Amino acid sequence: MSILLKNCRYIITQNKQRQVIENQDILIKNNLIEKIGKITEEADEVIDCSEFIAMPGLINMHTHSSMNIMKGIAEELPFFKWLDKLIQTESKLTKKELYEGALLACREMIRTGTTTFNDMYTDLEQTVKAVKETGIRAYLSWGIVDEDKTNQKGNPLNNAENFIKQTIQENNKLIKAGAGPHAIYSTKPELIKQSKKLANKYNTFMHIHASETRKEVKDCYYNYNMRVIELLDSINVLDENTCLAHVGWITKKEAKIISEKKATVILNPTSNMKLGTGGNPPLPELLKYGANVTIGTDSTVSNNSLDMFEAMKYTALLQKHMRWDSSIITAQQVIDFATINAAKFLKLNAGSIEEGKIADLILIDLKEPNLQPINNIIANIVYSANGNCVNTTIINGKIKMKNKSYLF
Amino acid sequence: MSILLKNCRYIITQNKQRQVIENQDILIKNNLIEKIGKITEEADEVIDCSEFIAMPGLINMHTHSSMNIMKGIAEELPFFKWLDKLIQTESKLTKKELYEGALLACREMIRTGTTTFNDMYTDLEQTVKAVKETGIRAYLSWGIVDEDKTNQKGNPLNNAENFIKQTIQENNKLIKAGAGPHAIYSTKPELIKQSKKLANKYNTFMHIHASETRKEVKDCYYNYNMRVIELLDSINVLDENTCLAHVGWITKKEAKIISEKKATVILNPTSNMKLGTGGNPPLPELLKYGANVTIGTDSTVSNNSLDMFEAMKYTALLQKHMRWDSSIITAQQVIDFATINAAKFLKLNAGSIEEGKIADLILIDLKEPNLQPINNIIANIVYSANGNCVNTTIINGKIKMKNKSYLF
Repeated sequence: MSILLKNCRYIITQNKQRQVIENQDILIKNNLIEKIGKITEEADEVIDCSEFIAMPGLINMHTHSSMNIMKGIAEELPFFKWLDKLIQTESKLTKKELYEGALLACREMIRTGTTTFNDMYTDLEQTVKAVKETGIRAYLSWGIVDEDKTNQKGNPLNNAENFIKQTIQENNKLIKAGAGPHAIYSTKPELIKQSKKLANKYNTFMHIHASETRKEVKDCYYNYNMRVIELLDSINVLDENTCLAHVGWITKKEAKIISEKKATVILNPTSNMKLGTGGNPPLPELLKYGANVTIGTDSTVSNNSLDMFEAMKYTALLQKHMRWDSSIITAQQVIDFATINAAKFLKLNAGSIEEGKIADLILIDLKEPNLQPINNIIANIVYSANGNCVNTTIINGKIKMKNKSYLF
Repeated sequence: MSILLKNCRYIITQNKQRQVIENQDILIKNNLIEKIGKITEEADEVIDCSEFIAMPGLINMHTHSSMNIMKGIAEELPFFKWLDKLIQTESKLTKKELYEGALLACREMIRTGTTTFNDMYTDLEQTVKAVKETGIRAYLSWGIVDEDKTNQKGNPLNNAENFIKQTIQENNKLIKAGAGPHAIYSTKPELIKQSKKLANKYNTFMHIHASETRKEVKDCYYNYNMRVIELLDSINVLDENTCLAHVGWITKKEAKIISEKKATVILNPTSNMKLGTGGNPPLPELLKYGANVTIGTDSTVSNNSLDMFEAMKYTALLQKHMRWDSSIITAQQVIDFATINAAKFLKLNAGSIEEGKIADLILIDLKEPNLQPINNIIANIVYSANGNCVNTTIINGKIKMKNKSYLF
């Protein structure tokens, strides 16, 4: 199977030089980008891209897709009341509802230009079903929580191991399983350590919430005489295979620890703002210290959107606002967070449009007035577009949406 | 001419009780909403709305639409460097470019569900041309600036008066002219007073930037020994026919003055955040004191989007974030800002879907996955939708966009 993206008006390559190429073609063969340039070869499918921007598909680094079924049920509540309401509702959800939530989430992500997502949840079988049905790429971490704090049957660590084993056995190229210790307030340090060991045993990654709220930091200090990142470091779970969601309440010292240990940061600005956690990661310092920074939407019970274009704009604007400095972060940096930085953590051969890379890419409709006029294409992507300006979504060399209609 | 919106899945009425009605019809005759309910009458055009939400068209209360042609030219610059860059570029713009900027802006607003906008600019003739071509509703204030600070030919106050007279003479039902003294740092207090007198003479409104940056406040204090709102109050220009854009740096005392004088506040959260002005209006206090609060996008050189759905979400999230309180502002309040509150200031018989009101309304596509699932339709509008989920835009009883295609 081959696809020729003919005469792309712009290609945002995200290659090393961050080139934006004009009026060139992209040839996709099987699941790879075979060639970029002026291509005379024929292909099974040809798409006229003269009114499209081609760019790498976006990577949503923090979601809980099944929770999507609860979108809107817990509005305008303080954080811990909000969490209680969710946990109560969640305990009554059927497998069918979890599946429907995940399916709608996958549809929304494909519609809005996300080709890969990094999810944490229990009962991930329903998510797997939705992922297979839609053909999106997924990194799925089974939630590992203290037994007295969860409704899941059996031992959470064993459940996670079974899920990882089962995923390896199935060998679906779009799905990889990781370990998901929930957070320090729901998963004891010893269990977080065991979760990391589990991830290492299967040569995979760990995904954890860290320092999302002030209360989490305060309680951590009370219980362990350390801040959250310091605690995680003290149990040796920070390395290049660990990603930390939120980090809204970390110090510069913690930012340095994260960077030195090469753990990946996942910013969730929209979720933090909507929940009123007050959290705002020290992004300029994280970047100065060399941290790998990425972006997530969080689930739609706290955002309530899975649109990564929106999340990119919130990432930039929140920093500019909090530092009273419009130059503190650039549109190009934000696109890096949502593409190549995320791919680096996931060890995914994607995140840029280059020959030999996996064909995870999207076509954005220049006929949408949001994208006009074009004085600065990179600024237009981050500050003017939204996910519904995406016309076509290609994942692993397969067209999943074309002319804004699903092909699954 | 009559239009029957048949079987609307939801109608967000914005009536006094803020009712959301399900599965009812709306009959539009000429430019008015004639009837809401189960309607058996025939009509010239019938639209099946079983997969749509009908809601009042959004009102963008602060824009400079011609500046749209400069979108993206001054990214990531500090405020006053950004302003210099714009003024330099602006002086070289041709009438054709001003027209194209305004035309693209009108197209983007109609595409994203805005039916009325409140603009401030000089050379508004090009904006008028774009407004007439697209059929959007516009309130246009000619920019009045000290003569040594503007490129406009002739005396700005006279130019503004000529524009108001000409607009009254033309009697285009979609266009109303006002007076637009730019800001206290560009328009001397005496000229602001004369601008207000001009507005009063023609029974119209005044639109001014106020307290956008800390520097503006500091300089105001240095020059007049008063803060910005205090200065405007001291020259008697605050009343129910004055609207104040930004108010990012006002005290609670100033919030009280605004409220007592019944002036209207225009929040511009996205623009303030993107420019890194650090401004954040004391919204809870403004509401407590009874101020009329509305929302604007500002121009696309500072936002860079005219999507009022996006602006609604930023309005809510910025307040929740700054007060560490997710309950400080509700989705319903934000919709009020963008509809009925704005209509109240503009003395426009619209902003809600009720019998006898002008038919300025939009249909939102429930097939867009952003809008699913529906547990809380009001939350979905503010936190999950974006402007590109709008399917149909009706202004003054005329369909300007249908199935996401323009009809002009």
